[in-house]
Amino acid sequence: MADGRQKKFIKELLSKAKTRREQGLYVVDGPKMCSELSPCDVEKIYVTDDFFASNQADMCRDILSECGYEQVSGSEMKQMSDTVTPQGILVVARQRRIKGLSGLMERVNKKEAPLLLLLDTMQDPGNLGTVLRASEAAGVDGIIMNRECVDIYSPKVVRSTMGAVLRVPFLVVDDLTRAMDRLRDRSFMEEFSVATPEFYAACLDAEGYHTDFDYRKGSCFMIGNEAHGLSPELIEKADHRIKIPMHGNVESLNAAMAATVLVFEADRQRRVVKQ
Amino acid sequence: MADGRQKKFIKELLSKAKTRREQGLYVVDGPKMCSELSPCDVEKIYVTDDFFASNQADMCRDILSECGYEQVSGSEMKQMSDTVTPQGILVVARQRRIKGLSGLMERVNKKEAPLLLLLDTMQDPGNLGTVLRASEAAGVDGIIMNRECVDIYSPKVVRSTMGAVLRVPFLVVDDLTRAMDRLRDRSFMEEFSVATPEFYAACLDAEGYHTDFDYRKGSCFMIGNEAHGLSPELIEKADHRIKIPMHGNVESLNAAMAATVLVFEADRQRRVVKQ
Repeated sequence: MADGRQKKFIKELLSKAKTRREQGLYVVDGPKMCSELSPCDVEKIYVTDDFFASNQADMCRDILSECGYEQVSGSEMKQMSDTVTPQGILVVARQRRIKGLSGLMERVNKKEAPLLLLLDTMQDPGNLGTVLRASEAAGVDGIIMNRECVDIYSPKVVRSTMGAVLRVPFLVVDDLTRAMDRLRDRSFMEEFSVATPEFYAACLDAEGYHTDFDYRKGSCFMIGNEAHGLSPELIEKADHRIKIPMHGNVESLNAAMAATVLVFEADRQRRVVKQ
Repeated sequence: MADGRQKKFIKELLSKAKTRREQGLYVVDGPKMCSELSPCDVEKIYVTDDFFASNQADMCRDILSECGYEQVSGSEMKQMSDTVTPQGILVVARQRRIKGLSGLMERVNKKEAPLLLLLDTMQDPGNLGTVLRASEAAGVDGIIMNRECVDIYSPKVVRSTMGAVLRVPFLVVDDLTRAMDRLRDRSFMEEFSVATPEFYAACLDAEGYHTDFDYRKGSCFMIGNEAHGLSPELIEKADHRIKIPMHGNVESLNAAMAATVLVFEADRQRRVVKQ
């Protein structure tokens, strides 16, 4: 049984970015994503009486036996969850926080040619979720975003990433221009044996199409806000301004689609084009 | 003033695919997309008293003067619209219906190398909207979908296409396999001087990556349902089974993202790769 205070706390974690940030916690819903959590991610697990009767319980057996759980009724789960049909398991999870750009650079896989993404004030949860999912699929090494982006631990983002939020390294920074300076600082980057990237700002006033550039070296795509694009200061600081060529009367692609096209073009070049 | 019957009818057009289909009508909301309608699209226009005071009325001036309009109060508009903050103009519009595959082939721009999309039971409105928008941007000549796809004239789809629903030719068919047979029938296609396309089924059990194939000739990408993919019969009928290579633990991309990556790869080849 979950008491009123617990239910209220979970509601707050679901609805308030501030509470999530202060507590360093968030909510994970459903067996698929819960099964991807490590024991060190888990603060508390709630499971309905019915959950064990379902065939979905199997995939969560390890995490349940390692971390323990609290059993609640179906109606209690409904009160806690923000979905119409809760899936019987809900975890209060600990946010994985990477420590600064150093922490992010430590996790870069492709050290000689890092593939990075910089997000400026991306505010739609579905877009951010899509970007995370596309980034994982295209082999992005890390995502850097400013605090004005939608909270990556909001339930909508978490759900739409299909688990990518647990797998793609990301970092929230106060100042993206300072982050760019650090990523261009060779002595800083050499500490982690990571090559400095070229910065490609996606914008309408571009110098060329995205397919005109070579992304096989270290590359960082910069994607802006849904309505206003990248801030002028960030565009100014980029090495190149690129756009995706478009037919018809389309003014611009949705930010998530644009990011998807760019990271898959980088991955295509890295797989297909011989150096 | 709009009477009760009109309001009820608009509500039905917004909520019921059956009513939209039977009446051949749908609802367009907001000045941006309303300004893109032709007079022949318009059944009836509703405008709020305040609308003319806004600077957005300008872009709709032509259509308003050509088609006339009915003035309604702000609260009447709220009752009619399905959005929380209606934008002051709402049009009951006529569905543009292309007559069969003949009608679709007549509209193909790239006759020697048509770029087509075939959608099998795509059910999420946001996905279909994204696919239309990406298709327009990547120069897709036509989209063929089955009746099991979400209604393209549902307000969510219409809104998320950002007008592409008016610009990308599409056709709803009863049987996608029969449509494929027709598109492979050289004598039928020669009537319209359109080359027969190769069919590329996007599926997990693929023979190669999407970047392994040449889409500069006539090409038709086949995209399946969000949960179940393409039907086995359609995969069986395809010329090639392709997948997008993926890093990490991503099982598959969202259907709209996959379609986006594919159509932009075709467009890239057509722009960049010399024959």
